[in-house]
Amino acid sequence: MKMLIKDVQLNEVTTDVLIDGNHFKSIGIKLNESDAKVLDGRGLAILPSFVNMHTHAAMTLMRSYADDLNLHDWLTNHIWPMEATLDEEDIYHGSRLACLEMIKSGTTCFNDMYWHFHGTARAVEEMGMRAMLSSVFIDFNDASKAREQRNLTERLLEESKQYSDRIGFALGPHSIYTVSKESLKWIGNFAEKNGLPIHIHISETQKEVDDCLSHYGLRPVQWLKKIGLLGSNVIAAHMIHVTDEEIGILAQYGVQVVHNPVSNMKLASGSFPFCKMESKGVNVSLGTDGCSSNNNLSMMEEMKFAALHAKLIHNNPTILPAHSAFEMATINGAHALGLDCGRIAEGALADCILVNLENHRLVPGYRLKDDMVYSADSSCIDTVICNGKVLMQGGYIEGEKAIIAEARKYKKRF
Amino acid sequence: MKMLIKDVQLNEVTTDVLIDGNHFKSIGIKLNESDAKVLDGRGLAILPSFVNMHTHAAMTLMRSYADDLNLHDWLTNHIWPMEATLDEEDIYHGSRLACLEMIKSGTTCFNDMYWHFHGTARAVEEMGMRAMLSSVFIDFNDASKAREQRNLTERLLEESKQYSDRIGFALGPHSIYTVSKESLKWIGNFAEKNGLPIHIHISETQKEVDDCLSHYGLRPVQWLKKIGLLGSNVIAAHMIHVTDEEIGILAQYGVQVVHNPVSNMKLASGSFPFCKMESKGVNVSLGTDGCSSNNNLSMMEEMKFAALHAKLIHNNPTILPAHSAFEMATINGAHALGLDCGRIAEGALADCILVNLENHRLVPGYRLKDDMVYSADSSCIDTVICNGKVLMQGGYIEGEKAIIAEARKYKKRF
Repeated sequence: MKMLIKDVQLNEVTTDVLIDGNHFKSIGIKLNESDAKVLDGRGLAILPSFVNMHTHAAMTLMRSYADDLNLHDWLTNHIWPMEATLDEEDIYHGSRLACLEMIKSGTTCFNDMYWHFHGTARAVEEMGMRAMLSSVFIDFNDASKAREQRNLTERLLEESKQYSDRIGFALGPHSIYTVSKESLKWIGNFAEKNGLPIHIHISETQKEVDDCLSHYGLRPVQWLKKIGLLGSNVIAAHMIHVTDEEIGILAQYGVQVVHNPVSNMKLASGSFPFCKMESKGVNVSLGTDGCSSNNNLSMMEEMKFAALHAKLIHNNPTILPAHSAFEMATINGAHALGLDCGRIAEGALADCILVNLENHRLVPGYRLKDDMVYSADSSCIDTVICNGKVLMQGGYIEGEKAIIAEARKYKKRF
Repeated sequence: MKMLIKDVQLNEVTTDVLIDGNHFKSIGIKLNESDAKVLDGRGLAILPSFVNMHTHAAMTLMRSYADDLNLHDWLTNHIWPMEATLDEEDIYHGSRLACLEMIKSGTTCFNDMYWHFHGTARAVEEMGMRAMLSSVFIDFNDASKAREQRNLTERLLEESKQYSDRIGFALGPHSIYTVSKESLKWIGNFAEKNGLPIHIHISETQKEVDDCLSHYGLRPVQWLKKIGLLGSNVIAAHMIHVTDEEIGILAQYGVQVVHNPVSNMKLASGSFPFCKMESKGVNVSLGTDGCSSNNNLSMMEEMKFAALHAKLIHNNPTILPAHSAFEMATINGAHALGLDCGRIAEGALADCILVNLENHRLVPGYRLKDDMVYSADSSCIDTVICNGKVLMQGGYIEGEKAIIAEARKYKKRF
């Protein structure tokens, strides 16, 4: 199946883009391909679509359910009790709403951690997105719980093979304070043996660091190094409370760090040390976190928050310029997942967005990436393509009304 | 002219809203008004529209023209040279784009300061919005420039009377470092004599404070108190670098303070002391600033930045909850301008938005104001009404293509 995008803007030049199967095959002027479906690109610009590197997709069901609370109150009195009532079917509906929202705001790939693996996997499969999915692994130092979780992990790895190659399987140890040392070591070995990524929250709060110091006499990154968990397959979300030495370790082991500025600000978790990460050469990507602490999945908002947050905390408006924020939201995430997406180039995976240059938020239009980071919202995105297939055109996604109708039922339930 | 909005959601209750002329006349179930135009409110919720309390509207023409630069470089090498080439016709086109963008994102009223008064006034008049407009007053301590500016001010006050009562006239002394003491005193007297608001930037940067201290031995708010400029008619933008004593003075004089979180973060100007302002009872509203330092005019984004910025800098997620951010973006601005808008109530000015409850960003829909602050974007807004007149319906504004076509021409010019 071939698709030819005619007369689209790429880096300010009018060009044609030919997609063959799931890859960009050729990019150039006046391409002809008689057997290709033609998509009129006039008035549109092509850009890489976004890679959301830290989500709990089905938490769309908790959007605006509990806001402006202290972390402990929020989790124990609101989020966890609600979460405990959800089954795989609920997760499927929540994940479909998440996919809908991500596609509408230009995201085609996400790195998720949540319960009821198959609920999210089915949603991603149907919605045509690309995702790295992990099942939350928590054992609270309980040996029988740990066995149960290891068995589940082994089973899910096998079961995950039923899905298309748009869906990858990752291990999801929640954090160092919810998973035992033994299980973390088991996860490290299992990941190595099976070539899997590990998706984990690290150093999100000062309390986590203090507890780690009091239990092990080491800070979280030092401790994870000691038990042998660190590597370039580790995708570490938040990573706020880290010392220069720890950032050096992250760089040394090639750990993939995910910055979550909106969630970190909303929960008052702290400020991400962007400049130090950058100067050490750590690969930093962006993630929205779940909808209960954001409350949306917009990577456009996340880019703006990342850029402005860095300028504020470093007291320097030249820090984290728009093009860097755009890379964090696209190709840096692709690198972290080992995928050749996040760029518009021959041979790369055909994941992209077409933005409407006539949208008022992109006018006059001096610098498209600056506009995308600092001005745009979802209304600017006309078309979304993932793996060579159109997921949204003219702002419309097939079946969107039914997805919303299902998700609205949760208002009555909770 | 009467308009009846049937079966709309107001605070989670289905109701009818009757608009008579430019006011809400009655709100209740099953209203009948045979001579009213009927607007179907099913699936929509009615909310106050936003009041953007600090703008330089025509700077839409500079959107993404110069980003990620140090303040001095940005102003002297990019913004000011470009601004110097603009005439009234340019300001008209830039202001029309600004009005378009504001309406699309639910704003019906703004407080502006810019050059070429009539360019902006004509745009506001045509686009049907409400605005308080001031002409920038700068004399750089030059007596002849000061005379010229005073004459212009007197003339513009007279000329402003040609516009409808949706347009108010304010005085726009740029700042204490660009306007002489004599002119500031003249402005204070002229405002008092004519019952006018004064719109001014105060304590935006540390440099402004340091210079004021070295020239006058006083901080900006102390100095403005001394020369008699402070009062409840003063609308002060930014107000970042202020001491507790200065905040006490602002409260004592009833100064209207405007918080501009996006601009303050983007230019790394500093952090607004929200908690101290709140505890002293200062009326704080929100403004986007101009598009060259934001780069849009979305009050929805501004609410989210205000709430999250406050949580971050006060290290407390319960600070500035969603409902407070919503008030800052609506009724607090209305109060500052002395207008009875920013609320849906019988007798108030009929300025409102109708949001689409079926939009994915507002689903499941537990708390509409939380969703508006933390999740929504412009795609959620279906209808915008100002002064009893529909400015946007189904997301469409009359004449929008022509406005965008004109504004896109500036890309070629600069």
